[in-house]
Amino acid sequence: MINYEALFKISYGLYIVSSGSKDYGNGFISNTVFQVTSQPPKFAACCNKDNHTAEVIGSTGSFSVSMLHEDAAAGIIGTFGYKSGKEINKMEGMELKYGETGVPIVLNEAIAFLECRVVETIDVGTHLMFIGELVQAEVLDESLEPLTYLYYRRVKKGVAPKNAPTYVDKSKLEKKPAEGEYAKYECAACGFVYDEEKEGKKFDEMPDDWVCPVCGAEKDDFYKL
Amino acid sequence: MINYEALFKISYGLYIVSSGSKDYGNGFISNTVFQVTSQPPKFAACCNKDNHTAEVIGSTGSFSVSMLHEDAAAGIIGTFGYKSGKEINKMEGMELKYGETGVPIVLNEAIAFLECRVVETIDVGTHLMFIGELVQAEVLDESLEPLTYLYYRRVKKGVAPKNAPTYVDKSKLEKKPAEGEYAKYECAACGFVYDEEKEGKKFDEMPDDWVCPVCGAEKDDFYKL
Repeated sequence: MINYEALFKISYGLYIVSSGSKDYGNGFISNTVFQVTSQPPKFAACCNKDNHTAEVIGSTGSFSVSMLHEDAAAGIIGTFGYKSGKEINKMEGMELKYGETGVPIVLNEAIAFLECRVVETIDVGTHLMFIGELVQAEVLDESLEPLTYLYYRRVKKGVAPKNAPTYVDKSKLEKKPAEGEYAKYECAACGFVYDEEKEGKKFDEMPDDWVCPVCGAEKDDFYKL
Repeated sequence: MINYEALFKISYGLYIVSSGSKDYGNGFISNTVFQVTSQPPKFAACCNKDNHTAEVIGSTGSFSVSMLHEDAAAGIIGTFGYKSGKEINKMEGMELKYGETGVPIVLNEAIAFLECRVVETIDVGTHLMFIGELVQAEVLDESLEPLTYLYYRRVKKGVAPKNAPTYVDKSKLEKKPAEGEYAKYECAACGFVYDEEKEGKKFDEMPDDWVCPVCGAEKDDFYKL
């Protein structure tokens, strides 16, 4: 028996994993960054093969990890987590610094960052696991708490995008009973709340190609509150 | 520049990773368990090559992950994290259940567990990374919070043992100024506090082979409060 709720008891953080150069950079939201050895310090980052950043890390040979804080603006998760670098330039307008290997490091909403040089790439199926040796590590803000995936799910009501290793098909989770006639749905990308009572229309009745009026995320990216 | 404090901003949980059979089982405390793909659900667990459990997982071909809760008794972390299965039988007296693959699953202080069949073993240097496909997942307690490594470090004042991927040599961390003439030292394994003022002797002056009077952890496992 597999109860998918058990998977949510594993603790993760939320990070922007970036790669590229001064000329072109891209990044995505990851919750699976972790240290794999202490001597030398090596870190793993999992990336869906369909993610554009996987290609960019592959050709660049290094990546950076920006660690987000608890009150990080939802917009940055929307940009890096729910949009593709094939369609938009995610680095545009971001506060960037460039690492020793030349990769961009996103400083917005970050409390610390790592820079790693890829020493191994492991194919784990739908995802690639990039193993990188630590080149640089810096703390940017001592006062803020790191954003955890649990906090993101519970307080910010966020869900993992389809390409995440931790994506869980909602139909696999046990259904909770309806709490009233009207419900509210929150956009996982920007936090906008669709209130059925206020809008006068059930969320389910909205067309499939309807998008979030604030950030343009798809209907599927909304989460029932 | 590498500031090792930055590494503590990565979020982890704390787990007992076990393997073996009804006849013989062993386990260790891990903070690096994470999902690597969603279809099928696959999980990675990093284990130091010197850990006895690495050998046991290698010969058994499967492992279980017990997810500890925030108020987990320090004793269980002492037993599984700071002692070797080569010297003691860690499973003795534990509340166990056996998985579909036959591996023991520790139920003490656990809120959920996973059982995985190893599909790949990756050598990442000092550690082996076992990639396992999910066989079973269960929630044991919905009401308790998962224990995070941050909580363990901050509230429980725990440190990573030498064999952990996230072990940081204390000498690499910036020194904090002394807060008074007397200091207190806490055992990372069981929580016992050595109070210099009460004991009338500086902790540094205690012999190197002195052990925790409560759980027998080594002097090196104590952390300055």
